[in-house]
Order: sequence, then structure tokens, then C-alpha cells
Amino acid sequence: MLSSDAITIAIDCMGGDFGPAVTVPAALAFLRTHDAAQVVLVGKTAALEPLLAQCPELAARARILHADEMVAMDESPTLALKNRKKSSMRLALNLVKEGAAQASVSAGNTGALMAMSRFVLKMLPGIDRPALCPVMPTMTGHVYMLDLGANVDCSAEHLLQFGVMGAMLAAALDHKVAPSVGLLNIGAEEIKGNEVVKQAGHLLRNSGLNFIGNVEGDGIYKGEADVVVCDGFVGNVALKVSEGLAQMLAQSLKQEFMRNLLTRLAALAALPVLRHFKARFDHRAYNGASLLGLRGISVKSHGSADAFAFERAIVRAYEAASNHVVERISACLADLHERQAVAADKENA
Amino acid sequence: MLSSDAITIAIDCMGGDFGPAVTVPAALAFLRTHDAAQVVLVGKTAALEPLLAQCPELAARARILHADEMVAMDESPTLALKNRKKSSMRLALNLVKEGAAQASVSAGNTGALMAMSRFVLKMLPGIDRPALCPVMPTMTGHVYMLDLGANVDCSAEHLLQFGVMGAMLAAALDHKVAPSVGLLNIGAEEIKGNEVVKQAGHLLRNSGLNFIGNVEGDGIYKGEADVVVCDGFVGNVALKVSEGLAQMLAQSLKQEFMRNLLTRLAALAALPVLRHFKARFDHRAYNGASLLGLRGISVKSHGSADAFAFERAIVRAYEAASNHVVERISACLADLHERQAVAADKENA
Repeated sequence: MLSSDAITIAIDCMGGDFGPAVTVPAALAFLRTHDAAQVVLVGKTAALEPLLAQCPELAARARILHADEMVAMDESPTLALKNRKKSSMRLALNLVKEGAAQASVSAGNTGALMAMSRFVLKMLPGIDRPALCPVMPTMTGHVYMLDLGANVDCSAEHLLQFGVMGAMLAAALDHKVAPSVGLLNIGAEEIKGNEVVKQAGHLLRNSGLNFIGNVEGDGIYKGEADVVVCDGFVGNVALKVSEGLAQMLAQSLKQEFMRNLLTRLAALAALPVLRHFKARFDHRAYNGASLLGLRGISVKSHGSADAFAFERAIVRAYEAASNHVVERISACLADLHERQAVAADKENA
Repeated sequence: MLSSDAITIAIDCMGGDFGPAVTVPAALAFLRTHDAAQVVLVGKTAALEPLLAQCPELAARARILHADEMVAMDESPTLALKNRKKSSMRLALNLVKEGAAQASVSAGNTGALMAMSRFVLKMLPGIDRPALCPVMPTMTGHVYMLDLGANVDCSAEHLLQFGVMGAMLAAALDHKVAPSVGLLNIGAEEIKGNEVVKQAGHLLRNSGLNFIGNVEGDGIYKGEADVVVCDGFVGNVALKVSEGLAQMLAQSLKQEFMRNLLTRLAALAALPVLRHFKARFDHRAYNGASLLGLRGISVKSHGSADAFAFERAIVRAYEAASNHVVERISACLADLHERQAVAADKENA
């Protein structure tokens, strides 16, 4: 029996490439470092029970919720929404909906998770579709970037909402009072960009957020802003381009070090440094993208996450819940609408 | 007196961060490796003459065209177009217009160069604005990507034209019969992307080009296509994000190697390998972006190019001229219009 006072995270244990072998150890590691937290492990009892039994000291803070089904990684979101009502993904979200958990985490099918999160948790008033907001490393720390989901045709108003949601996420997770928000654009000047982006710049300047103006592509990694907003098309390209470039550079560096006996010896000497370098940008540490704009917390882990990476996603969900990210977004949106109403009144007066 | 048979490149010697100190040595190095080529050095005679005098053996293939003015790097394109009619940039383009040169190269103000190129050389029939097409390294070689210029609000038809122009540039510079063309998108399936991109996919599939479908951000660096088309906003973000990430990784790697005495010793051992690695992605080797869609050849060098980099831009201009890139684009556009007319007839029949 879990306590009703503690923060409880619902974990879809069947999602991702490795299922319970990764998700359960990650959940247990999370419990070890978070004394007050609880988890509900959602999935096939027969698979989860033996793993949980290995840590009897944590059993009081973990319970299993049996789920017969799971969403396949290649299942269409629409079909998953219709047919997978008893899936581990769906039951984990139901727990959040019912208030039995304060956040859910899944490494499953992204499209299905977005569709189900939206259907089960519902959108906040005035928000159309959830935005996907990962965290990425920069020269100076990290940046929250959104949308990296499926919002490919965004209006200026959408970009403004992304700014609000991203800022409140940064405020909740990093305890920043006024996180800086930048608008991804192709130049520093206000007149740069396409019509939607120009209009979004205007809205953001009058939003009450700590808006620092345009950020160019290289500014993301320079750490020019705590939050960078863009539409889902541009965001996806920026993320994938980064992945592709990093992969190319890593592979080429390896090739150079493996070229001949001499370079292999050099590699041996450089290995500790290279390991340290790699750890600095370890994508596992940045695992866990927040689905924002919902009436509850849903965090998406990478499908190929290992236990370390999946634990990071759980921690992110826990921090978002502890620091009331949904309430912060609601309050900020209400403030924004009031501000806009006052401005409209002034204009009409 | 230059020969009227040889290919002549008009060089704006005053543009860029370093002016004649870079542009003239680059031009002379170019002449040394291209026996049949000629150059017109456009700029202040007093600055150019002493540099040219150092290589009397090349004097027969180089002449100076005096220009009193130059376009400042921060000058507005509109004002430059209006006020800088005697600038080195403008006179170099005039030479191409008059047929006294077959291509021009400038490291000057990008916006001014685009405006002047368009005004002096004029657009090809059916093309609205010039596209900027740089070449970038990939895992397997290199890729031409366009537009990376100022075309931020592109129609599907524009993206189709970029496909034609990029393919013909790759055909001319790399001697490929049917360069593969990919459409930058956020998924492999035809239904992915925003409305403009979906429509562009349809046009490209029926274009007669070797269209391979969608390419995702990471596919650019995997070398999935010889040419990748996208609108100028997305292209700019992709390029700047790449610059920012590469810079962050390079700087961090350096920091790791400089951490302490031990890591510095490791750096010493790894230095030859790191140098080789760096050379492999030396951005100087990729200098020289082609302005496409014009009735003549105009190549933009990076403003901070050194002599090696600027020479690469000259070579690219020379190859484009020798291999008739403008004529290829014209022919391919004519073919495309015929194909579209036939398809429209069929639909109406």
C-alpha cells in the first residue's frame, strides 16, 4: 500500500527496446536516491515481480499494476489509442489522470504516447496540441528546446505558448526565477525570419516572459537562452542534424585513431581524455523529454535508453511533479491571457 | 591583354575581412594550377599592382580592373545596390554580364552580393530569387544544400527549382550524370512534413530528376543524397546548428586535453591524429557557395576566408563555368516546363 502523501511516478515498464530489464532497475535506482518517492510499475506482473523481489527493502515504496497488453513501437498512434486501452502505457497515464500518480514515464512509441497523453490527460485550456520538450547540452549548461514533436505547422500564438511552457519547465526543473527564452531565427534583428516567426517575436516581447529575442542556430549550443522555441519541423531538423553531425564526427575521430599502429598507440594515451569528453555530452544524461500543455505530467524516454538513461527520465518526471510544472504553466497562461485582454482593451479604448 | 578564348574569372579583390592580402595570392595560386585560366583582379590598382608584380610569370593571364569603391560588410543591400555602382563587387559582376568574364567571386557582404548579382546578371526565366548553395562534408563525400540564402517563405515550386539548380550544380562540379536529390523532411514517409514540403515532394517525384524522397536531418551528414533541398529558414538553422555544435565539441575536446599535465601529455601523443581529423573537415576546403538561378555565375566566399579557402571558391567558380552550369540549369528548367505542360494537357484531355 503506497502512501497517498508522497509523490508517485507511474512507470510504463513494458515500453522501449528493452522493457522491464531496463525500466525496473531504473525505477529501483530512482527510489534509492529519492527517499520520499514512490513508483507504480505498470506491466506484466510475471515479468516485474521477480525483479522487484530482488530489492525487498524498496518494496514498501513500489507496487505493481498488471497490464496485459503493450503498444508496439511501430503501431499507428490512432490504432494504439483505439485498441490498447489495457496497455501498460495507457494504464500508467490513467493513474496520473486518477490522481494515483503525479507523473508518468514511458520509453514507448512516441506518436502513441502523444495521442494517449492528450486523450487521457487532456490539454490545458487554450492549448491545442502537446509539445515535446527535450533538454540538450550547451557550452554553459543545458537548454530546453520545443517543439520537437509533431507540431509542424505552427502559428505565432503556438510559438508563444511554447515559450510559456518551456519557461515554466525550466523554472520547475532548474529552480530559475525568470528563465531566458529565445526565438530560433536566422538573424539577430527583429525584422528577420518568416512572417510567423516575426509575429511570434512580437507576441513574446509583450508576454511578460524573460524574452531575449532571436537566437540563431549556433546560439542554441552557445547557451544563449535557457529555452529556445521553434516549430516542430525546424526543431526536428535541428535535432536530427545535430545527431547526424555528432555521429559523423565521432565515427571519423575513431577512424583516425584506428588508422595504424602509431595512431592506435596515441588512442591508448588519449583514451582517458576521450572518455571524459564523451561523458560530458553523454546523451543518456539528457534523456527524458517532457510532453507539455497537458493537465498532467507525461515524460518520454528514448526507446533505446539503458537503466541510467531511463532513471534520468524518471528523475525529470519527479522534479516536474515536485515543482508543480502543470500549475506553473496554467498560472502563466492565465497571466498571459489577462495581459492580452488588457492590451486589447487599451487598443480599443 | 587577356585571350578571349580562355575562361576568365572576375575577382572582387576588395571584399572579405582581409581584401587583397588574401584575394590576390589566392588568384595567383589558382592560375598556377589552372594553365588555361585567366583572372581579372578588380580593386584598387595601387593595392593590387605590387602583389601581382611579385609573379611576373603569371602577368599574361591576369589583368587589373581599377575600382574606386568597395561595399562595406555592414552596408544595407539596398543602399549598396543604389550607391556602389563603381565598387569592386559591382564591376566584377559587370564583367560577367558583358561576357568579359565567365564567373565572378566575392568574399564581400552577402546581402549586397545577392542583390547586385540579381540586378546585374538577372534571373533565369521562371526563377524569382537567387538561391545560395554551399557544399558541405558528409560521411561519404560532400553534399550540396540549398537554399541557405534568404528565401525564407518558399513555395513548393521554389523547392522544386532548388532541386533542379542543385542537381545541375552537382552535375557540373562533380561530373555526375544524375545526382540524387533529397527533400529535407522530418520523416521518411511521403505523408510527413508541412503542406509546402508535401506538395514539393509531389512535384519532385514528377520532375524527371533523380529524386530519392525525403532526407531527415541526420541523413544530410550520412550522405544520403548528393543534393538536399529545403527552404532558406530551415537551411540556415541546419547550417548554424551544425556550426554551433561543431564549435562546442571542438572547444570541449580542447578543454579536456588541457585539463592537467597528464592530459596535456596525452594531447601531445594524439596531436598528429587530431590534426588529421581536423583537416578532414577543414571548412576552408568547402568554401565557395554558388548563387544559383542567375544568368551568370556568381560565387560567394566566406568573409573570413584565407588564401587557401578563397582559392577553393575561385576553383568552384571556374569549374561551374567550364562545365556550363547556367546552360545546364536553363535546359533542365525548359525540360521541366515541357514535362509539366504535357502533364497538364493529359489532365485536361
